Amino acid sequence: MKEAQLARLAARVLEASGIAPGDAQDAARILVTGDLMGHATHGVLRLESYCERLRSGAMDAKARVTVEDAAPAIARVDGANALGPVVGMRGLREAMARAKAHGVGLALARNSNHFGAIAPYCLIAAQEGFASMIGTNASTTIAPTGGAETRLGNNPIGFGVPRPGGRPVILDMAMSVVARGKIRAALQRGESIPQTWATDRHGKPTTDPKAALDGFLLPFGGYKGYGLALIVDLLAGVLSGAAYLEHVNSWLDDPEKPGNLGHFFLAIDTRVLGPADWLAQRMADFDAIVHGTPRADPAVAVRLPGEIELDRLEHHRREGVVVEPALIARLEALAA
Amino acid sequence: MKEAQLARLAARVLEASGIAPGDAQDAARILVTGDLMGHATHGVLRLESYCERLRSGAMDAKARVTVEDAAPAIARVDGANALGPVVGMRGLREAMARAKAHGVGLALARNSNHFGAIAPYCLIAAQEGFASMIGTNASTTIAPTGGAETRLGNNPIGFGVPRPGGRPVILDMAMSVVARGKIRAALQRGESIPQTWATDRHGKPTTDPKAALDGFLLPFGGYKGYGLALIVDLLAGVLSGAAYLEHVNSWLDDPEKPGNLGHFFLAIDTRVLGPADWLAQRMADFDAIVHGTPRADPAVAVRLPGEIELDRLEHHRREGVVVEPALIARLEALAA
Repeated sequence: MKEAQLARLAARVLEASGIAPGDAQDAARILVTGDLMGHATHGVLRLESYCERLRSGAMDAKARVTVEDAAPAIARVDGANALGPVVGMRGLREAMARAKAHGVGLALARNSNHFGAIAPYCLIAAQEGFASMIGTNASTTIAPTGGAETRLGNNPIGFGVPRPGGRPVILDMAMSVVARGKIRAALQRGESIPQTWATDRHGKPTTDPKAALDGFLLPFGGYKGYGLALIVDLLAGVLSGAAYLEHVNSWLDDPEKPGNLGHFFLAIDTRVLGPADWLAQRMADFDAIVHGTPRADPAVAVRLPGEIELDRLEHHRREGVVVEPALIARLEALAA
Repeated sequence: MKEAQLARLAARVLEASGIAPGDAQDAARILVTGDLMGHATHGVLRLESYCERLRSGAMDAKARVTVEDAAPAIARVDGANALGPVVGMRGLREAMARAKAHGVGLALARNSNHFGAIAPYCLIAAQEGFASMIGTNASTTIAPTGGAETRLGNNPIGFGVPRPGGRPVILDMAMSVVARGKIRAALQRGESIPQTWATDRHGKPTTDPKAALDGFLLPFGGYKGYGLALIVDLLAGVLSGAAYLEHVNSWLDDPEKPGNLGHFFLAIDTRVLGPADWLAQRMADFDAIVHGTPRADPAVAVRLPGEIELDRLEHHRREGVVVEPALIARLEALAA
């Protein structure tokens, strides 16, 4: 399916749930870009759970997102329990507007919900000339290093650096070694998992996918990933005025309650740092140095972060993206 | 030795090398705080190589660090090949001053040198009410994921979040699984190393410490740590106008050449986000939740990032810090 067609369908689904047309287009853009970058779990697949929560009143289709200045370059965004990507696009625009005025801008959002993948936001910022750092907290799936119960979310963080006239560098990563979906897939195939992926419910590393699904995800890089997950929550949750750690409500455990997730959006206007040519030349050289690295394995390329996702995006923009027909049918029904 | 005494000695060493008294005190503060936090490799031990480079002219004791506004909230700092911690303290102050005026402030420094550990800068920022993100690039020790030659540094990044009236949370981490010193120590003890630590010179993971010292450090968390190391270099090196990747000169390989390292300093004024009580209460709750996590192993505590370093700092401020007498003697000789 072509991007524009999928985006129209997504927007129609959201409008049918009571979202205003402009907001529906914003949210559709984030989700469809997620699909095109290959993050199907953060794409239009999410529309079904979004609509369910809008219907039940757990999210508010008519919420009015409000913004106040904490300082000239800091916006506080009250998501008022609106759809996450609507709050997300508002936060991103506020951060970019402040960066345009002051060089750097920060938006801190509270009372929000799941806002999709981070890479699409970083891509939009990069296309407008902004370097970005964006993060969100999430309901708890990770135990602190040395802990035997989950206390923090798989709080993803993303960074983008623009390359004028070319491809940005985009790093979008969650804090676990792998997503839970990979452990479920191993269970379905009857395979064991590496013991770096997860612990059992007592906090002991396990190779048994079933025990792992009853336990907790392990952060990447041990205490470093754990520390980074906490920092994301301090910025996205504590400083924003949102929920944090175990205060973040889970869709699965308590579907009727607002999540009160928090996000942060930092934008840096790279155009004030030097002419576009200057940055384009430096980014091209950076790219050439990394790609010129001799390979450890001739069959495996050395890549920049985001390269695979941007390859997929270009391919899918050209060729269209394959979305499961059953999902399309369900979305058409929701849009009707 | 008491903190004040060690700081006076460090400042005298630097003044004897031609550094102005105020700058010498700034640099001494960063190095001595590093020692007190337990980062002896980033403490007064560094004074010997700093002095050697000041003497040879590879760093400039009389350099005039200059600052220009790229935008109201962004300072560009030209380190002019001054001592790294002098550039570092200037960058930090510029970022904090801009954050005070605009809410958030950024300083991008070029033409700098090794600036000590990052945690002391984050601590100073936190004590003045600023959340911070600070990073630097470094000469190459890490190969890109899939690469068989070093192309990037072990670019550390640090974050600090203040807790009014209490201890901040400080995360200061380099990008490798372990420092090279740990591999050298294994070699000296005749032990093998985990194969997650380093590769041989062909880019293949190895358990042989000798092969590892001829090879490259592996980033923590695989491609996630690799990606983060690149992002630090894009912010600290590319956007600042400094050297980046293999352009960063190594002290070891080319001791006479300026390093042209780059740093970034981001400060967020937390006082504009809410009253001190509000943040103090949230940080106390955050602390209580993390520390209240049941332990996987009853003998191993669950900790917040920076806790061990801040424990050591308090202990050493009370009791004094042990510095090798031979080092003190060499520093006294340099100061004379």
